[in-house]
Amino acid sequence: MDTIKEAVAAIRPPDEQARHAAADLQSQLTKPAGALGRLEELHIRAAGIFREPRPTITQRVIVVAAADHGVAGDGVSAYPPQVTFQMLQNFLAGGAAVNVLAAQANAAVRVVDAGVRRDTDDTRVHNAKLRSGTDNITRGPAMSRHEAETLVARGITFACEICASDTPTVIALGDMGIGNTTSAAAITSVITNTPPRTTAGRGTGVGDAAFAAKVAAIERAISINAPDPSDGIDVLAKIGGFELAFLAGVAIGAAATGAAVVLDGYPTTAAALTAGAIVPDVIAYMLASHVSAEPGHRIALAHLGLQPLLDLGMRLGEGTGAALALPLLDAALRIPREMATFDSAGVARSDTETRPEA
Amino acid sequence: MDTIKEAVAAIRPPDEQARHAAADLQSQLTKPAGALGRLEELHIRAAGIFREPRPTITQRVIVVAAADHGVAGDGVSAYPPQVTFQMLQNFLAGGAAVNVLAAQANAAVRVVDAGVRRDTDDTRVHNAKLRSGTDNITRGPAMSRHEAETLVARGITFACEICASDTPTVIALGDMGIGNTTSAAAITSVITNTPPRTTAGRGTGVGDAAFAAKVAAIERAISINAPDPSDGIDVLAKIGGFELAFLAGVAIGAAATGAAVVLDGYPTTAAALTAGAIVPDVIAYMLASHVSAEPGHRIALAHLGLQPLLDLGMRLGEGTGAALALPLLDAALRIPREMATFDSAGVARSDTETRPEA
Repeated sequence: MDTIKEAVAAIRPPDEQARHAAADLQSQLTKPAGALGRLEELHIRAAGIFREPRPTITQRVIVVAAADHGVAGDGVSAYPPQVTFQMLQNFLAGGAAVNVLAAQANAAVRVVDAGVRRDTDDTRVHNAKLRSGTDNITRGPAMSRHEAETLVARGITFACEICASDTPTVIALGDMGIGNTTSAAAITSVITNTPPRTTAGRGTGVGDAAFAAKVAAIERAISINAPDPSDGIDVLAKIGGFELAFLAGVAIGAAATGAAVVLDGYPTTAAALTAGAIVPDVIAYMLASHVSAEPGHRIALAHLGLQPLLDLGMRLGEGTGAALALPLLDAALRIPREMATFDSAGVARSDTETRPEA
Repeated sequence: MDTIKEAVAAIRPPDEQARHAAADLQSQLTKPAGALGRLEELHIRAAGIFREPRPTITQRVIVVAAADHGVAGDGVSAYPPQVTFQMLQNFLAGGAAVNVLAAQANAAVRVVDAGVRRDTDDTRVHNAKLRSGTDNITRGPAMSRHEAETLVARGITFACEICASDTPTVIALGDMGIGNTTSAAAITSVITNTPPRTTAGRGTGVGDAAFAAKVAAIERAISINAPDPSDGIDVLAKIGGFELAFLAGVAIGAAATGAAVVLDGYPTTAAALTAGAIVPDVIAYMLASHVSAEPGHRIALAHLGLQPLLDLGMRLGEGTGAALALPLLDAALRIPREMATFDSAGVARSDTETRPEA
């Protein structure tokens, strides 16, 4: 697919000069060196992504991609599959958690139908659908390789459209798909080489019996499909989901246009794992918002080398954790723009800091 | 002191009915039960404090109290004592980290001189000063019992003035005082019965030799003064600081008027420990914003039974961690006001949730 190839080729490493300038700025602000902890790291990372020592984000978009999963019929979720469509309607009505947290974060929500079983004619929905739900991954591949490539390409195109205005943008990833933590755990197992009993979690809240069934389903999905961990498209096609393929594309498209990508919970991080398997350079454009209550999420983030900002026991998806972290990013970037320096404020430096200069 | 007695008598336990109503509300919103994790707890706790199932905060004030410490001359800090005054000027000029993070959080900053060595005639500073800096706690008490009571009373009166408008208010505590993590560690050691080598930290960034001196100073301060851990005023007078006594009063005054109190780092949490020793009911009005890089901070929070929202390796004080957490509190309270319920949105409940009703 030319769209994928072009986007992959367009991803540059972050700007090292801007990172250094940002770190230097931090050392001049009226506070002990390192006293703002992770906020300083966040600023320096963002400086590299936006190629600017004092970046300002002017556009925040949460892309919530929804799709159904064939495996959802196997009782791996506490919710019936029709909830995917019902929640899509809820996103449009503004009544879901992500709508509330997006408003709080001054972010727009873009709703994407990447393969929901029931159709909507609401024009606010971005239609990326090839068909209604994946095939059951415990019996064969979720989708064909061509379908996976098409969804990734559609995600890339969508991200490029959002970033077309050439304004510094953060794209947060959000997911909705009953059954998708099963797929997320399968992807995490394959790419991080970790057994499903460790990567599987309780998702929306299944009991012990359903949890055992979920682990068995993931083991079966992996053994029957044998996805190649070094081939992100293969992983998406065999054990992924339509929304996960689309979101992997969004991450790649965002990185290609120089936007930052904020991950949410387990499904979006699994999508990020596949994006990283397609093009490792995309990872430098990612920020981890939170670590969810799903045990595999921590494993997936560690594989990406990302440290989450929040650990609040959330496990809702939709982009809610990402939305909650956006104000932290805004705060981190406001510091170098607005804080005084030791020199400008006439504040004495510490003994250890002044000694090398004296 | 009548001011202290009256405020202590005015503190009611949080409203259990509002807490229950808030928990019930959470179970009706379109998300799996508990899926918003700590945000749900935060909403329920705030509902009890504000005596309202769907509280709205309309006033956010960060009270930054500054004072000098006699012990600062002993080399326990990486910064010279005059930085306390210089930073007070920086707060007024709007160039400190807390100013930037307060603006981001839509909060006002109120600067208090609780005992800074150098005077200011800036009318924006609330003057609560008795004298310029405490005595050296390694040689005797920081201040007299009467002085400690006066500062606590002044903090109470200040908090009551802020809350006088009868609007739902959050008061965040902020501190500035070179040498005050030494005092914070001494207070934490005494009230939590933990040795100073465990409660002491690197503060603004001291080296190994200064750290050993700091631990020795704390040990000496405790042995020479023998503060009574069950008497908060005694602890403040003997090993506290003027800004810590004032902030303990702010916490008590806020609780007496039904406002929530957001703690910041180690010094403000040490002040909270003394407030809790004066009147244990005040603790129910407290929210922990973050856990700092200071190892004793975690011990102090655990003693109060508070779980921090953020863990970002920050160690700046000033109210910066509290400011950063305010948007999380706003987000938590926006959820029950704006999210749809399962019934209103027509979303199916989970199998486990519907079974008891079926």
